Order: sequence, then structure tokens, then C-alpha cells
Amino acid sequence: MGKVRGALLGKRCPGPLTPVLRPQVALAVALDLRTFLRLRPSAEGRVSVSLPGVGFGRSWDTPDLQALRGRIAADFDESKSPSVEQLDALREFAGIAAGASAPESLATLAFLYMCLAISAKYGDVPSMDILVCSELPMGAGLGSSAAYAVCMAAALLMVCGAISCPLQEGEPTARWTEEELTLINSWAFRGEQVIHGNPSGVDNAVGTWGGALRYQAGKITPLKRVPTLRILLTNTKVPRSTKVLVAGVKEKILKFPAIMNPVLDSIGAISQECQNVLEAMPENPSPEHYPVLEEFFDINQHHLNVLGVGHPSLDRLCQVTASHSLHSKLTGAGGGGCGITLLPPDTSPLAVEAAKQDLCACGFECWETKIGAPGVTLHSASSLSAQVQHALSRC
Amino acid sequence: MGKVRGALLGKRCPGPLTPVLRPQVALAVALDLRTFLRLRPSAEGRVSVSLPGVGFGRSWDTPDLQALRGRIAADFDESKSPSVEQLDALREFAGIAAGASAPESLATLAFLYMCLAISAKYGDVPSMDILVCSELPMGAGLGSSAAYAVCMAAALLMVCGAISCPLQEGEPTARWTEEELTLINSWAFRGEQVIHGNPSGVDNAVGTWGGALRYQAGKITPLKRVPTLRILLTNTKVPRSTKVLVAGVKEKILKFPAIMNPVLDSIGAISQECQNVLEAMPENPSPEHYPVLEEFFDINQHHLNVLGVGHPSLDRLCQVTASHSLHSKLTGAGGGGCGITLLPPDTSPLAVEAAKQDLCACGFECWETKIGAPGVTLHSASSLSAQVQHALSRC
Repeated sequence: MGKVRGALLGKRCPGPLTPVLRPQVALAVALDLRTFLRLRPSAEGRVSVSLPGVGFGRSWDTPDLQALRGRIAADFDESKSPSVEQLDALREFAGIAAGASAPESLATLAFLYMCLAISAKYGDVPSMDILVCSELPMGAGLGSSAAYAVCMAAALLMVCGAISCPLQEGEPTARWTEEELTLINSWAFRGEQVIHGNPSGVDNAVGTWGGALRYQAGKITPLKRVPTLRILLTNTKVPRSTKVLVAGVKEKILKFPAIMNPVLDSIGAISQECQNVLEAMPENPSPEHYPVLEEFFDINQHHLNVLGVGHPSLDRLCQVTASHSLHSKLTGAGGGGCGITLLPPDTSPLAVEAAKQDLCACGFECWETKIGAPGVTLHSASSLSAQVQHALSRC
Repeated sequence: MGKVRGALLGKRCPGPLTPVLRPQVALAVALDLRTFLRLRPSAEGRVSVSLPGVGFGRSWDTPDLQALRGRIAADFDESKSPSVEQLDALREFAGIAAGASAPESLATLAFLYMCLAISAKYGDVPSMDILVCSELPMGAGLGSSAAYAVCMAAALLMVCGAISCPLQEGEPTARWTEEELTLINSWAFRGEQVIHGNPSGVDNAVGTWGGALRYQAGKITPLKRVPTLRILLTNTKVPRSTKVLVAGVKEKILKFPAIMNPVLDSIGAISQECQNVLEAMPENPSPEHYPVLEEFFDINQHHLNVLGVGHPSLDRLCQVTASHSLHSKLTGAGGGGCGITLLPPDTSPLAVEAAKQDLCACGFECWETKIGAPGVTLHSASSLSAQVQHALSRC
């Protein structure tokens, strides 16, 4: 589980942590690749959800949803994990086979769970059409499921009146209070549980609060002040399995504890040092911080390779960016998936362009984005970029 | 000083260790690239030394050497380091400027020191011609100076009668007793001090005893049983400075102790585990040991990169051999110089040939050789290969 242990994860939401990796400090940082959810009142008596990005759309009659809720709602609470019985009932209702892992199946189950649970607790949801578009690649270990769950929790809680509508007339964007964010996060975590079974909760916390979070021994603490850092996010498109990777790391640690445990200690120390640097940057935004972060990127990347979560495609990514004097590390669970490249303020646009071209020539996909981005935010329709408005209006 | 800390160094002799790196276990392993020294009686009254490999030859009148010895011989002893005054006198005698670092200057000074010191202690040396040829590349961090010093000490001690001539009639090769090897090693260390100033003594110990040595907190212990392992030795030909590299490692440790010290611990643990595997191999020569050694190679190489003693040329070397399913690590001080690639018994000759070709295409130079080779050995002239005989007879 390189992604959760590594410094500067560039993620909205990492995955499950095994006990063997728990005691160390880890940082998770919010990416500025946003997931957008639009909720509109709809024709009476229907609720629809569509994710055009995965070519998916479903709708249900509200009476059917209410009947289902009546059957399984007894235990719905943000303090309780979804029960096996509830999930079985949801699967049966939605016609999803047990063990189905397609994104649309998991998105459907998570929506149904959150919709029924939130409406059971806070009051009925209206007839509505929900549309979700995301800039995040899916299944690349970047926490797209948590971003979905956070948006969905915020939208459903707001539409039920459990949290306020914070947007004032004329404001482009607004965020919720700390208390409301805590509620959004709790329900998003339940959504993540529907999708992942046993998530760490870091991904949804990053999606909710944004910025950067410290994770240690199960405790998640948002960092006080976090700078926004420019990065290049690169998807190697090499498929990977978080479960297999985590099992491999565990096996290595059990096989060679004297060799591997110090590596975990060093990774924990990188996270701690990285936190110190990140917290110092807003107050003293000197360029001298960047070479230190770059050194941490390099060391961390080597350590993640030692843990066995590297991949030749990620080595290639690091090598290509190094040839443009840029430093990269894997993000997410590793074993393929994505890498991030730090773009210090003095990086010339030409160098970024050249690096992107070389990465694309390897068959990779690149996005120029930021880490330390804000968490879940309510936007006025007019504040969205033309591109996002276009994406949302296509459906 | 990656080379001394790393497991499986593939060296006859590493260089100086700074105190900051001392407490950890390190292994040094003898390469089977031999240095040959031929000593022949010569015309009365002259002593000559030639190293045709570096295009170097010098000779002196024995009365001049005896006169010099008379002036500076008071303190010559294998238990004492060469004094500044002795070295100044030798430089003046040989016409070598203070601070001269050319191989021929250092070889001359080391010969003069050992010749005068050994003859002062054990009895005059005869008139003789000494010829030294080496299969080891020079200045590549592989301990060619220690191999030279070991051969020279053995030859001079034998010709003075301080140690026996162990070769029996009809035997191809012979080695000295443990006590005699200890004496050879002590004098070779003095020669190394003339050349390097402050060597660790590991290089000359490996050259003397061969096999593999464990080094910890200044203590050198030969491993009991060591297998002979096939390797590919590759010289990237990238020049490096051990001093600059060691200083860089030290600076990194002082700057980020919590990150770097665990890496040193892990490297120490690799050396220890590697020793366990090497000592288990002669008794149980199962192929299952090789993947473990390969894993240690990989981890060690990452750690050495973290310490800052890697180089893009060494990354390239590792990558090229990885494309042939072979595992490599840097050897010597790093920062360029050489790497070794393990060749497990089941490696096909075609794979080795293909790897060699790819490495040569990078501009590197390759030798197929062995580690865990014997230390200093006395050969009958007829036991030498035609190639070595030819090399020695050309002069």
C-alpha cells in the first residue's frame, strides 16, 4: 500500500490499510482533479443517477425506493457500517450479482445505500436527477470512488436538509461548516464501505477536507496550512490490484523483517518531514523547499520499489521526467497505475510541455493539475468553467 | 561508501570508511579478476618495477636504495603507519611531487616503501625485475591498488625469506599459512596507506584471504565457507570520486537522520542476511538461494540510490540486465564506476551473451568472472594460462 504510506500522495482517497502498515505516519494530499455532481429536481416520482463517464444511468420509482427503505431501514445510521443483509437487499433490488465489481454496480449500490440511509434518518429525498462527471481516471488508485461518495453524501444530505445550503446569492462557491463536513465525511465513508468493504477512511477524508491529511494508527488529522503545489499526474494505464500488492508487501515484511521494517520507518520519517515542509511553506513560500520535496519524492520512490509496489512503467515515468530535471513518484497503490511529478514554480512551460510529450510517447496519459486542492465545495452554476458546464449539459 | 556497506560487493578491496558508516555490518567479496606479479633475479645491482598496463617502468641501483633505507629505516615496522617524513623522503628520491596522484606515482611510492621497510626488517632484497599485470580495471573502485599491494607484499616477503615458498615440486599453485597471510596482509595494508592515506583495510584483507569478509566497527572477519558465484562485472566508465561521494552520504545522514539512519540499518541487515545465505550455500547448494540473493541485490541497489551514490549510468546498467531477467547492483563507491550482475547457474549462455552485447552497446565494458575467488596464491609458471603467460612475456 505504497500510496497511503508515501509522502505526498496526490490523492483524494487511498484504500484499505493492513494492520502491518498502520503505526507509521502517512500523508494523503488532495488532487485538483474534481468530481462534479449536479442534482436537479425531476419529474414527480422518479430518482435517476447517471455517470456518463462510465456510460451508466439508472432510475427508480420513488415508491419502490421507499418500500425498500421500509424493509431494511431499521439500522441506518452514519455510525454503523452497512450490514450484509442490507447490501444483499440492495443487490437484489438493483439486480446486481453478489461479488459484482463493475464500477456501475458499485456506484449503484453506494448511491442506493446512501440515498435510503440518509432519507431514512433525515427525511425523504425529492424526485431528482443526479449527474456525476469526474476529471479523475477511474480504477487508477486515485480515489475516484471516494470523490463520488463525498459528492453524493453532500448532495443527499443537503437535499434532505441535514446540512445547510451554504451558498449566498452572488457567491461563486461556498463550503460547509466543520460540523457539516464531519457529517458529509461520515456518510461518504459508509458509501466507501459499500464500494471497498474495508477502506481506511483516508480517501473520503481527503475528498471532504481537501488540503493534506496525516494518517497514523487509524487517526486522521487534517494539516493546518497546506500550500497548493503544481504537479503532473501521469497514468501509466498499467492495471494493478491493490489487494495483491498489499499482500506482497506483507509477505516481504514477514520474510525479511530486519531489512524491511527500517524501510517502513524511513517512509514514516519522510511523511513526517514532508508534513513539516508543507506546513512551513505557506508562511515562508521560499523556492528552497522544492529541492527538499524533490529529494523526498526520489527517496520515497526507491523505498516503494523496495516494498515491491513499483513497476517498470513507473521506473520509465521517473526516468522520462528526470531527463527534464523533474522528480516523480508513484501514487496510489503502485504496481502500475499513476505517478505524480512535482512542478516547482520555476519550471518552464516548455519543459512541462516536453515532459508531457515524452510521457505520452510512452503510451501514458498526463494531466497538469495541483495538489493541496480544496475539499468538497458547492458551486453556483455560473461559477463552473465552460468545459465543466459543457460536460454537465451533454447529458 | 556504498561499496563497503553493500552486500555482495564483488571486490578485492574497498576503500576508506568514514566513522559515520562504521557500526553496520558490511560484506566484501573477492573478485576473480587477478593481478599477477612476476619476480625474476636480474643483473647485479638493479631493482626494477614495471606495470605495462599503465605504461610504466622504473629501476633503481640497489646501493641507492640501501642508502635511502639507511636514512629513513629507523621506524619501519608492519605495526606502524608510514610517517610523513618517510613518505617525503621517498617522494624526493623518486622525483614525485607532493600530492601527485597518478597511478604510476602511487605504485612507485608503495613499492619503495614496502621494499625498503621489508628489507630493513627481514634482510636485503636481491637484484630483481618485478612485473605486474592486472585483469582489474584501475581507478574503477575495484581495489586494484590493494591487489597490487598484496602481490607486492607477498613477493617481497618471500624473496627476503620472511615467509616460506609454499610451492612444492610439481604443484601448480600453493597458498601460504594463516600466519604468513596475516603478515602479507599487514604489509599490504601499509602499502595501501601509502596509496590511499586512510584505507579501511578491507580491500587488502579481501585480496589476501579471498572469499568473502565481514566488516563491522573496524573488525574484519573472513566468512567460513563461501560459494563461488558467477557474475558479470560491468564498468560504466563514468569517473567518480570516492571522497566526494562519501562526503555526500555523510551530509545526507546529517540532514535527514530519521530518514537515512533506517536505510543504513536496512543495508546492515541485508549484509547480515546475505552472509547467512552465502554460508548456507556450500552445504546446501540449492538453486533456491539465488532468487533471495537477487532480491538483496535489488533492495541494496535502491538503498544505495537513496544514499546518493547511484548514477544514471548504473540505473541503465540495472535496467539493461533486468530486461534479460538478471539482477545488478553497483559495486565500489558508486556514482559511476562498476556494477555486478548475478548469473545464477540456470542462466543460459545466450542470455549472458545478449546482456553483454546490450551493455557494450551502452558504451560499457563487461567481464564474465566469479566472486568468492581465492586470495593471494603462488603459481608455478607452467600453471598459468597461455593468456597470462603471454601477457607476462611481452615485457
